[in-house]
Amino acid sequence: MAVHPRDSPFLRACRREPVPYTPVWFMRQAGRSLPEYRRVRAGVPMLESCTRPDMIAEITLQPMRRYHVDAAILFSDIMVPLRAAGVGVDIKPGIGPVVDDPVRTSADLARLRPLDAGDVPYIPQAVRMILAELGDRPLIGFAGAPFTLASYLIEGGPSRNHDTTRALMYGDPGLWHALLGRLADITISFLQVQVAAGAAAIQLFDSWVGAVSAEDYRQAVLPHTSRIFAALAAAGVPRIHFGVGTGEVLGLMAEAGADVVGADWRVPLDEAARRVGPGKALQGNLDPAALLAPWEVIKERATDVVERGRTAEGHVFNLGHGVLPETDPAVLARLTDLVHAESGLSGRPG
Amino acid sequence: MAVHPRDSPFLRACRREPVPYTPVWFMRQAGRSLPEYRRVRAGVPMLESCTRPDMIAEITLQPMRRYHVDAAILFSDIMVPLRAAGVGVDIKPGIGPVVDDPVRTSADLARLRPLDAGDVPYIPQAVRMILAELGDRPLIGFAGAPFTLASYLIEGGPSRNHDTTRALMYGDPGLWHALLGRLADITISFLQVQVAAGAAAIQLFDSWVGAVSAEDYRQAVLPHTSRIFAALAAAGVPRIHFGVGTGEVLGLMAEAGADVVGADWRVPLDEAARRVGPGKALQGNLDPAALLAPWEVIKERATDVVERGRTAEGHVFNLGHGVLPETDPAVLARLTDLVHAESGLSGRPG
Repeated sequence: MAVHPRDSPFLRACRREPVPYTPVWFMRQAGRSLPEYRRVRAGVPMLESCTRPDMIAEITLQPMRRYHVDAAILFSDIMVPLRAAGVGVDIKPGIGPVVDDPVRTSADLARLRPLDAGDVPYIPQAVRMILAELGDRPLIGFAGAPFTLASYLIEGGPSRNHDTTRALMYGDPGLWHALLGRLADITISFLQVQVAAGAAAIQLFDSWVGAVSAEDYRQAVLPHTSRIFAALAAAGVPRIHFGVGTGEVLGLMAEAGADVVGADWRVPLDEAARRVGPGKALQGNLDPAALLAPWEVIKERATDVVERGRTAEGHVFNLGHGVLPETDPAVLARLTDLVHAESGLSGRPG
Repeated sequence: MAVHPRDSPFLRACRREPVPYTPVWFMRQAGRSLPEYRRVRAGVPMLESCTRPDMIAEITLQPMRRYHVDAAILFSDIMVPLRAAGVGVDIKPGIGPVVDDPVRTSADLARLRPLDAGDVPYIPQAVRMILAELGDRPLIGFAGAPFTLASYLIEGGPSRNHDTTRALMYGDPGLWHALLGRLADITISFLQVQVAAGAAAIQLFDSWVGAVSAEDYRQAVLPHTSRIFAALAAAGVPRIHFGVGTGEVLGLMAEAGADVVGADWRVPLDEAARRVGPGKALQGNLDPAALLAPWEVIKERATDVVERGRTAEGHVFNLGHGVLPETDPAVLARLTDLVHAESGLSGRPG
């Protein structure tokens, strides 16, 4: 049955309205686990692939052809708006984002100019191509949050513990807030471009913010994520907020203004519901590593996530982090249908 | 004033007895941040340095000459007992432990034989050399816990999220428990050797166990750490248990039988005290990254840790993880004295 995207189970769950079944999508569903993705990407550097509208559209749509997932997520990378705003950054295979000149002084800040919609013409072009094929399933836009973006800029690349980031956060609050303020501006612009083009929801990824305590989150992070969510409020689309290892700050991530808080696999959803408090939906949180186990294990764990998700005011089923590269796509297809069947009145949505 | 080590502030705090001031030591105080350590280690591979009694003793004692810390920690590595028990493993500079043949099948288990005291003769030799010079400050022995050791064996080396480890934990409980059981046996033997030689306390490092949920910890990890702590009970030395990002499992780490639970910087000590419950002391938890900030910031944060530590039944001041390589030793010296002065009745212990 065809429904307007606004009445899709995904958007209804985000708005904490009744749904016929628990909607499902997977972080990194568009990407490295799909053979057709690896074919399309062969020989094309990551950040180049994120600036070619046809490639963005194709990769975004690939999982939609395989899975009955309830939403698409734009194929992009959290470094895309930074590169578009003039930051020298590349994504090296097997490593991750590598920044030419780390940002550690106020002089370095000068390299971070605001992002203009004209800097990312490929985004609205790609969104229009996607929407033309997507039918009644909504498209989720996304961006990286200031803490996580700052961690790459400050460390110069991926790091296990983001120690240099926290050292700057503690030691130079003036520079820290100036940096996060600029990153928030860039993030707001990037998300507004996506929403204006037709994204029906947005997800703000603060992947590494679990590295800070709640008190530091409140002082050093919350003002910037709050400003981003506030700037997006008028757009009227659900705002999802996710990070890894964020058990200590789930309540503050909700307080920042997210409509939907994503939890990783460490905190069960019934406990996450208590931490985020009333008026919030949850997203998550099957451990992506569980998808490498036998099906009976996956089934038991996925069913547990669905059951605990019922204690939230709204629940979007997802993994607790991105799909691992070695995941079998057939398992994701089967998992999607399992969640629909376990949560719905009449099995697989028809 | 000279005291018997058993009456030292460190051991008294571990036993939750009154102390004249909050005792201090630092994880990785013996190691990479000290120029004299880098000189001694020049040209000597890490695991070789851990098998030479004179080198172990010298490196263990180096920080004791610089700082008024209240305990020494044996210079070793969590891979030492595994290598002594026949595992092909090396520690590569800038990378970490690299295992020749990852353990992923029951056939691989055959390579893990029990550890005999005769496999590590350099440990009692080094401990005796250390105790001869250490005076009234106690020596802490240590070992890696089964989950963390298993993560290196299964992944084949360091990894960000230990995904393959959790996949095996979920997917093959039989192999998982057999592996952790053998690792627990090795760990027990290694700790018993240290205690028999004169270590006055032991710390069990489960550095990466924060990667699992509380429910999985209870099923897959707790039985093995409990057995280790139970096996050490008769020795009568305080048992410290520490991991990074363990906010969700602090209570279970206490339940496993630790006398002292170490917390990283994400959970304030007053909150950690609530999570571990009565009958436990705490260790921690100044963020090591804070030591790269200006002194006023360090002072404020360290004082806050001391104050929150007063809510615990016993408190050993430490960092929330190991000393970072770029830390200025002069800062650690000043921090040690600050904690003594802030927490004591009469300033620096004389």
